[in-house]
Amino acid sequence: MSNNKIGNVAIVGGTHGNELAGIYLVNHWLKNSTTVTRESFETQLLIANHNAIEVNKRYVDCDLNRQFSAASLNDSSLGNYEQSRAKVINQQLGPKGDSKTGLVIDLHNTTSNMGPTLLVPQRGEFYDLMAIYVRQHMPEVIVFLDEDHKTNDEHHLLCTIGQHGVIVEVGPVPQGVLKHEVTEQMAEMTKVILDFVEAYNSDSLPELNAETDAFRFIKSLTLPVDENNHRIGMVHKNVEGSDFKAVQPGEPIFKTFDGKEICYDGNETVYPTFINEAAYYDNNLAMSLCTKAVIKNPSLK
Amino acid sequence: MSNNKIGNVAIVGGTHGNELAGIYLVNHWLKNSTTVTRESFETQLLIANHNAIEVNKRYVDCDLNRQFSAASLNDSSLGNYEQSRAKVINQQLGPKGDSKTGLVIDLHNTTSNMGPTLLVPQRGEFYDLMAIYVRQHMPEVIVFLDEDHKTNDEHHLLCTIGQHGVIVEVGPVPQGVLKHEVTEQMAEMTKVILDFVEAYNSDSLPELNAETDAFRFIKSLTLPVDENNHRIGMVHKNVEGSDFKAVQPGEPIFKTFDGKEICYDGNETVYPTFINEAAYYDNNLAMSLCTKAVIKNPSLK
Repeated sequence: MSNNKIGNVAIVGGTHGNELAGIYLVNHWLKNSTTVTRESFETQLLIANHNAIEVNKRYVDCDLNRQFSAASLNDSSLGNYEQSRAKVINQQLGPKGDSKTGLVIDLHNTTSNMGPTLLVPQRGEFYDLMAIYVRQHMPEVIVFLDEDHKTNDEHHLLCTIGQHGVIVEVGPVPQGVLKHEVTEQMAEMTKVILDFVEAYNSDSLPELNAETDAFRFIKSLTLPVDENNHRIGMVHKNVEGSDFKAVQPGEPIFKTFDGKEICYDGNETVYPTFINEAAYYDNNLAMSLCTKAVIKNPSLK
Repeated sequence: MSNNKIGNVAIVGGTHGNELAGIYLVNHWLKNSTTVTRESFETQLLIANHNAIEVNKRYVDCDLNRQFSAASLNDSSLGNYEQSRAKVINQQLGPKGDSKTGLVIDLHNTTSNMGPTLLVPQRGEFYDLMAIYVRQHMPEVIVFLDEDHKTNDEHHLLCTIGQHGVIVEVGPVPQGVLKHEVTEQMAEMTKVILDFVEAYNSDSLPELNAETDAFRFIKSLTLPVDENNHRIGMVHKNVEGSDFKAVQPGEPIFKTFDGKEICYDGNETVYPTFINEAAYYDNNLAMSLCTKAVIKNPSLK
């Protein structure tokens, strides 16, 4: 097993200003760092989007978590608030492609019923071991893979500026609300990831399972709209709240305001998630579709 | 039984710009009015807060649903966007105290787990019959009374500008999200209220139960804060999502960020609601406390 030690970990809260759990946790850890401190690496804590937090909105000018592609970071003409914050954060934790940070953990909430989800935008032995370790220590965690569609340079997520990066995504919680259970799950998943890094660094990983289940993003579905791009329907109640549950071809996924059902017209079983996420309404996004995937333990190859 | 017929009913959506169910329903009914039309009265449909809807926020300048006290309506120095909208709406549906509208139904969503709730800010035979009728036809409805604390003149809610007024409040749904089930419950409760008015007007009410259960607002609880008014805790997960469920003296209701439980220090059983409502964070409000109440059928006196 290769073992490039992780020298430092950055934990980021408030990338979106109305996702409160990460903001409160990072602010708490800034005062009481014991639970995020380990022997084998340094821990850095960062609040990302101050102005958005101030106004309790996802963002002020544009979505900060879409500003971290290499092209955007290198484009000096992009200078609004979030585009500027992205460049500052990249300087602090990156720079992307040659990063001084071993692992970036970006803390997010969703209004969707996703439970505690580990979102992995890249792959490799380190991530596969982490995914198996995390699910072994916290079986309710869902691993969500999105590594097939873009190179790391193209990925626009904040966490991609580290040597490694993951998103801790926990829901359901309305925007601007702090939920005890959701906050506990976020704290617990962060703790387990840090424990994993500590064990990884010191070659003391426990015996890990041969494989673990995961979901892989395929594509997004948009809400039904009319010719003027006005919505004419909503997510069907049979799907609402059923993130990562199977939907078969022909099952209803939307209900129009005049009472018609629109059914899933694909050919294969899919597993929707980010169902009815409030932040995605700007783009009329209704849900992300996934397939099932399996992550094999790379140590057993 | 007195029977002052209701000549017209106004159904209002979008008093808060990020509570989508009422906005979509009123817009739908503006195009297809069959389900809200009855023989014995006129139905008027109104979208209340256009600018807040445009920006997908509760309000632009101040909470529209707090601008309808007689004092505010008569104070010409109050001239921001919502204060102006309040005066226009009062002219259109009121005026308060001498209203041309028999019943105002104001449609709202909450992030709290309140299910379909009928909020009654005044009392009288008409409301008592309505409450019993609605619960007889839709038993999942909770009746929430808040008539003890203010005169109708003092009440600042939009629905108080009618001769009668109620709020249809349905949750849980995040701000800015349209949920199929919540929207259906709102449409169904509105339909049942209109059916009640139709039967009331035509002296054809069915045999109504002798009484029905309800909850009565006592007071609000605020989140725990430090000396700088910064929150130091959150609603305890044992209470979160348990709207209208009993809390006994000594049971935990808050959890501080440093891990302590804060317990309910009252002497009597209470029933919290509007638990962790996102919109009430501005004031650090954590929940409203209620007692149980019983509404007697006034026809049986």
